[in-house]
Amino acid sequence: MTKLKNDTFLRALLRQPTEYTPVWMMRQAGRYLPEYRLTRIRAHDFLGLCKNPDLATEATLQPLARFPLDAAILFSDILTIPDAMGLGLYFSTGEGPKFKRPLHDEREIRNLVVPDPNVHLRYVMDAASQIRKALNNEVPLIGFAGSPFTLACYMVEGGSSPDFVRVKTMLYQRPELLHHILDVNARAVTAYLNAQIEAGAQAVMIFDSWGGALSYAAFQEFSLAYMKQIVDGLIREQDGARVPCIGFTKGGGLWLESIADSGCDAIGLDWTVDIGEARRRVGDKVALQGNLDPAVLFSNPETIRAEVGKILHSYGHGSGHVFNLGHGISQFTQPENAAAMVAAVHELSRQYHYH
Amino acid sequence: MTKLKNDTFLRALLRQPTEYTPVWMMRQAGRYLPEYRLTRIRAHDFLGLCKNPDLATEATLQPLARFPLDAAILFSDILTIPDAMGLGLYFSTGEGPKFKRPLHDEREIRNLVVPDPNVHLRYVMDAASQIRKALNNEVPLIGFAGSPFTLACYMVEGGSSPDFVRVKTMLYQRPELLHHILDVNARAVTAYLNAQIEAGAQAVMIFDSWGGALSYAAFQEFSLAYMKQIVDGLIREQDGARVPCIGFTKGGGLWLESIADSGCDAIGLDWTVDIGEARRRVGDKVALQGNLDPAVLFSNPETIRAEVGKILHSYGHGSGHVFNLGHGISQFTQPENAAAMVAAVHELSRQYHYH
Repeated sequence: MTKLKNDTFLRALLRQPTEYTPVWMMRQAGRYLPEYRLTRIRAHDFLGLCKNPDLATEATLQPLARFPLDAAILFSDILTIPDAMGLGLYFSTGEGPKFKRPLHDEREIRNLVVPDPNVHLRYVMDAASQIRKALNNEVPLIGFAGSPFTLACYMVEGGSSPDFVRVKTMLYQRPELLHHILDVNARAVTAYLNAQIEAGAQAVMIFDSWGGALSYAAFQEFSLAYMKQIVDGLIREQDGARVPCIGFTKGGGLWLESIADSGCDAIGLDWTVDIGEARRRVGDKVALQGNLDPAVLFSNPETIRAEVGKILHSYGHGSGHVFNLGHGISQFTQPENAAAMVAAVHELSRQYHYH
Repeated sequence: MTKLKNDTFLRALLRQPTEYTPVWMMRQAGRYLPEYRLTRIRAHDFLGLCKNPDLATEATLQPLARFPLDAAILFSDILTIPDAMGLGLYFSTGEGPKFKRPLHDEREIRNLVVPDPNVHLRYVMDAASQIRKALNNEVPLIGFAGSPFTLACYMVEGGSSPDFVRVKTMLYQRPELLHHILDVNARAVTAYLNAQIEAGAQAVMIFDSWGGALSYAAFQEFSLAYMKQIVDGLIREQDGARVPCIGFTKGGGLWLESIADSGCDAIGLDWTVDIGEARRRVGDKVALQGNLDPAVLFSNPETIRAEVGKILHSYGHGSGHVFNLGHGISQFTQPENAAAMVAAVHELSRQYHYH
């Protein structure tokens, strides 16, 4: 393999020295970009875009053409796995993801099978290897998956939920049944991420979007334990390079110490945590990724620069910080405000790195 | 005033010795009770119920007739204040609260006036004094209001919001304008809670439902500062008794130390925080209220008893704990499961109190 031209992102994840703080944005390929909206029209719908490697490659590269981002992320969705399990993923306008066949009875749950990622999720691996080639070793490619608990939320609820009545009822009423789903999901995610790594992903991220809806004890037992199981089974070196893993529990700021013990190389932070305080809490166990409130991008370049500066200052000197938003970029963001954020990170962060 | 027959709740809030841990439930008068649904039909709609002191009294007392709760809470809504400011509160089925005239331009914001609670919110004070009489000194009456930031979210967004685009845009784009709304709200809430205390409320609670959507720094500046302003202006003694104040920021578990410094006597906790850990963090500054996940009540009496036991054990020995859910009780709860929770708290907590 040719050497990466810009490996700042990978070095920061491994807490190795860098010249500046690398930056990328969750959901950086998305609806806030006019060129993405055109690509999506050609794909007919969101899922069609995920399933078409040419269009997924095009979407992945779009934000990199606009902004000097330090990483690309595979264009896909966390719900490809339950879709491959046969639940029938679809997206209804304005209502988010839904399943035609959510898990409503015990028989369906007992019949769940781990999909073979190179067969049932071939389109994802094709996209990953095509994107990796198209990136031409400019910046690294991030692969990703949803956490077992987060996938289970959608699989049991049948879609998004404000209160997770069904999955939490199962958690407290039939915990062994939920554990069965989570174990299948953990094995599926492990195989899926390893296939992405073999197809070209140079780092991976586990999105635990809903673990933060649990109590401390339930989070440990029903979400973090399965994230650990995944990390333990991941390929950690590929083509002679360490493949770093980022764990991100939205709303998990209270539990950073235990997430830092999961084996991940880095923890994603949402914006509710002060990143300097987070760094003091986790010490030198892991790198940190985050954590600007995406709503800051609704303001103006001056405010964005000031807020970026506050986060860099709070993190302080030295490596181990990957700048990001604390959640996905909003569809209502002006692209020039995203540009202002990326520029501010690159410019203002140099003073915090020793050469 | 005659002495309260059961003042366990008030003593726990002031960290004075009690024989057991008192318990009440947020939204204890509500849709999970069949008798409440009948009362609401007679009131035509939710707001009609709030505005009719006879029916509000009836609804307030219903859960006390079923369960041996240690406190009653005024039946009302946090959005009565913006309604009294002229924003036109209404409830559309399945969509939650909405305003006919949300704050969309600067002129409307500059024209906001603090309503006189004894004139424009007379119906709330009438309900409070009528409920207080009807309680006949059995248990104390809790008054409440929304936090200035939480009210501002609804006033600016025009209703509930998944991402608070409008209010956060204002926060980062026009902070001085949001500060103006928050200052008016803080003065309105102070006057409103003081009027409730004069009408009979023996403790008050400030619900900061959305402060947890902010970054650490924005929470301090735009939510907590105004909660402090309210606490500083509250009547703290009425009829020779201390009137305790409970501050509750949902999703504020990361910031307990600063909330404990706000002047509140107690902090409400949602279920994401381990209550024993919270107690270690705040020391003996404040009492703690919480924090069972309302979803536990979807299970069964045995599981509920076990989960109640875990929270009591985590809090440990001594006073200063008011048991509650970590958020309002769900409309899908079976009343017998609420009964099981209350019974478990009363029975299992005695071992943690010295006599």
